[in-house]
Amino acid sequence: MGEDRIYNFNAGPAALPLPVLEEIQGSFLNFAGSGMSITEISHRSRWFDDVVEDAIARTRRLLKLDNTYQVLFLQGGASLQFCMVPMNFLPDDKIAEYVDTGTWSSKAVKEARILGKKVTVAASSKDRDYACIPKNINFTDDAAYVHITSNNTIKGTQWRSFPDTGKVPVIADMSSDIMSRPFDPQPFGMIYAGAQKNIGPAGVCMVIVRRDMLAKIPEGLPSMLNYNTFVVKNSMYNTPPCFAVYTLQLVMKWLEETIGGLGKMEVINRKKADLIYGLLDSSSFYRGTADKDSRSLMNVTFRLPGEGLEKAFLKKALSQDFGGLKGHRSVGGCRASIYNATTVKAIESLVDFMKTFERENG
Amino acid sequence: MGEDRIYNFNAGPAALPLPVLEEIQGSFLNFAGSGMSITEISHRSRWFDDVVEDAIARTRRLLKLDNTYQVLFLQGGASLQFCMVPMNFLPDDKIAEYVDTGTWSSKAVKEARILGKKVTVAASSKDRDYACIPKNINFTDDAAYVHITSNNTIKGTQWRSFPDTGKVPVIADMSSDIMSRPFDPQPFGMIYAGAQKNIGPAGVCMVIVRRDMLAKIPEGLPSMLNYNTFVVKNSMYNTPPCFAVYTLQLVMKWLEETIGGLGKMEVINRKKADLIYGLLDSSSFYRGTADKDSRSLMNVTFRLPGEGLEKAFLKKALSQDFGGLKGHRSVGGCRASIYNATTVKAIESLVDFMKTFERENG
Repeated sequence: MGEDRIYNFNAGPAALPLPVLEEIQGSFLNFAGSGMSITEISHRSRWFDDVVEDAIARTRRLLKLDNTYQVLFLQGGASLQFCMVPMNFLPDDKIAEYVDTGTWSSKAVKEARILGKKVTVAASSKDRDYACIPKNINFTDDAAYVHITSNNTIKGTQWRSFPDTGKVPVIADMSSDIMSRPFDPQPFGMIYAGAQKNIGPAGVCMVIVRRDMLAKIPEGLPSMLNYNTFVVKNSMYNTPPCFAVYTLQLVMKWLEETIGGLGKMEVINRKKADLIYGLLDSSSFYRGTADKDSRSLMNVTFRLPGEGLEKAFLKKALSQDFGGLKGHRSVGGCRASIYNATTVKAIESLVDFMKTFERENG
Repeated sequence: MGEDRIYNFNAGPAALPLPVLEEIQGSFLNFAGSGMSITEISHRSRWFDDVVEDAIARTRRLLKLDNTYQVLFLQGGASLQFCMVPMNFLPDDKIAEYVDTGTWSSKAVKEARILGKKVTVAASSKDRDYACIPKNINFTDDAAYVHITSNNTIKGTQWRSFPDTGKVPVIADMSSDIMSRPFDPQPFGMIYAGAQKNIGPAGVCMVIVRRDMLAKIPEGLPSMLNYNTFVVKNSMYNTPPCFAVYTLQLVMKWLEETIGGLGKMEVINRKKADLIYGLLDSSSFYRGTADKDSRSLMNVTFRLPGEGLEKAFLKKALSQDFGGLKGHRSVGGCRASIYNATTVKAIESLVDFMKTFERENG
C-alpha cells in the first residue's frame, strides 16, 4: 500500500482517493500560492471562490444537471436534511410519501413526523428485515414529494432503478451512492448527500435542488434552515466548511479527470462488486444478506457460519491490514464498503484473503 | 516566514498555529498509526474517540469548566445557534434579553424573532455606530436568558468584563474571542463559538452548555436542533465534522502545552494589541474606530485619511505579504485581526510596515 496505509473498507467516513489526499497534503501550508493553508483562507477570497465554483461546475457536468438545478454545500449532514426537507417542501395541507428501506429512511420519517407533518409510508421492506428494495409501489399522484434512500449502508441494498412517481418530485438521500453511477436527474426535485462516503470528508452535505422546488418554500423559516438562504448566497450565507468543500472539489476533479466520469466509475464499481458477490455466491461459507436483485454496489453485507467465526475473521482481517469490515453495530456480521475510492486491487486482495480464510476455517 | 507563508490578518477563517498545520500535514496520509487519513477514519473508532475525548478534556481544563458543563461539537456555525438557542431555551411565555453590539448580535435577535419568540433589546450601541459596548445595562430578573456577543469582529469592540445579570443565565456568542483570555464560566448558561477564528478551521461550532439549561429544553424539537441529542451521544449522534474537530483538538493542545494556558495567552494577546493600538494612538495618520474602553484585543479596526490612501495601503500591504487587512465589506476601512495564532512577530512586522507607510504618505 505504501506509507503503511491499510485497505480501508469503512462505511463512512470512508476511503478517499490517494491522489486527492496527496494533493491536500502537498499544499497544506500554502494553498494555491496564497501563502496560507486552505484552513486559513477567507471564504470571501478569490481562492475559495474558485474552489466553490469549480466544485459546482464539476458536479453539474458529472451529474448532467441543467440550469434548473442548484448545487449547494450545507452543514449538518443528511441528518439535518431529514428535518429541513419537510420544513421546506411539505405544507401542512399536503402529505409526503416515504419509502422505508432501513434505518436512514426510518429516521427521515421520524423527523418529518416530529414536525407534525403528514407522512405516509408508501412501502417498506421492514417485514423482510430490509433485505430488499420494495417493488411495484403504488404512489398517489398528489403527494408533495416521494422520499427514498437510494442506497442502504447498513443492510447492503440499493435501488437499481428509480421509481416512477409520475409528476410527483422525488427527493432522495443519496449519501452513500451519489457519483457512483450515472442516472437521469429529471425526476428528482432534490437530492442530498452527506459527503463522507463517496465524495469527501465528513462535514459537508451536497444538496441539489430544482428551481421549481424553491418557490414552494414557506415564509418564516429560520435563515439557516431555508434552502433559499443558501441559493441566494451561493452556499456562503455564513462561513461554509471550507476544508470539506475543498476536498469534495478535489474528489470531483479526480472523478472527471482520472476516472473519466460516472459511466466509467460505474464500470469499475460493478467490477469491484462482482468480485465480492461472485465469491459469496460460489461459497457455502460466506452468505450475502441482501436479496440478489437489491444488492448494493457500495456496501456488501455478509455473514459467516456463526458469530465466533465472524469475530475470528474480523480479527485476522485487521491483522492483515483490512480495516472497517465489521457490520453496523445494529446488525452485526460483516460488511465491505466499497465506495468509489476503494480500488480494484483492494477488493482483489480482500477476496484472496476471504478465500484463504474459508480454506483454513471452512 | 518560511514555506512562502504570508502574515495572515484574516478575520475568519483565520491564521492557525503553524505547528498545528505541520502536525496535520505530517500525518495526513496515516493518522496515529491507523493506516488511514484523519479524513478516512470512522467516527466510531478508538482513534476518533481519543480525538473527541482529548478535545473535551483540554477545553475543560483551559476554561476551568466544572462537571456541570457539557462540551459539544456541532455543525452550522454560530449562525445555526442563532435559531437553536431560542428554540431550546426560550419558552413562549418568557422573554429573552439581547444586547445589540453589532451585526452578529442583530442577526441573533432577528433569528429569535423569526421563530415568533419574545425578545427585547436590553441595550444597544447602534446610535454610536457600534463603536462601544453599552454600559450600566438594567436587566430584568425574570428573563429566560441574556444574550451577548463577547467580541465584535466588524466594529472591533469587545466586552472587557461580562455584565452582572443576577440569576439570569448569560448565553454568549464567543466565536471571535473564545480561548483568548481566562474568564469565570459560572454566569454562563451556554457559550457557543464557531471555530474558524480562534480555535480551528471552519466547519465546527463549540457549544458549552450548563446542565441546568438542558432540563429546560422542550419536547418536540427536531433531533438535530435539540442540544440534548448531542449531549446524550457525546456529539456523535450523526457523523461529526471529524477533520475540524481534530484540528480544534490540536489547537487546544497547542494552547495548553506550547502557550501554557489562557492566562499566558492573554498576556501575549495584550502585548500584540498594545503594539498596534499604541501606534494608532501616537499617530495622527491612523485612527482607531472603536472607543478606547471597548477596544477589541482580537480585531483592530482603523481608518486612514481618505479612501484613496486606504486603497493604496491595502495594496502595498498585500505586496509585502500582509494579508487580510481589508475592513469588513459592510464598513470599509482597515482591520487587523490578531487572534491567538497571530504571532508577536507578525504584529511587529505590521507595525513597522504601517510606520513606513505613514512616513511615505503622511
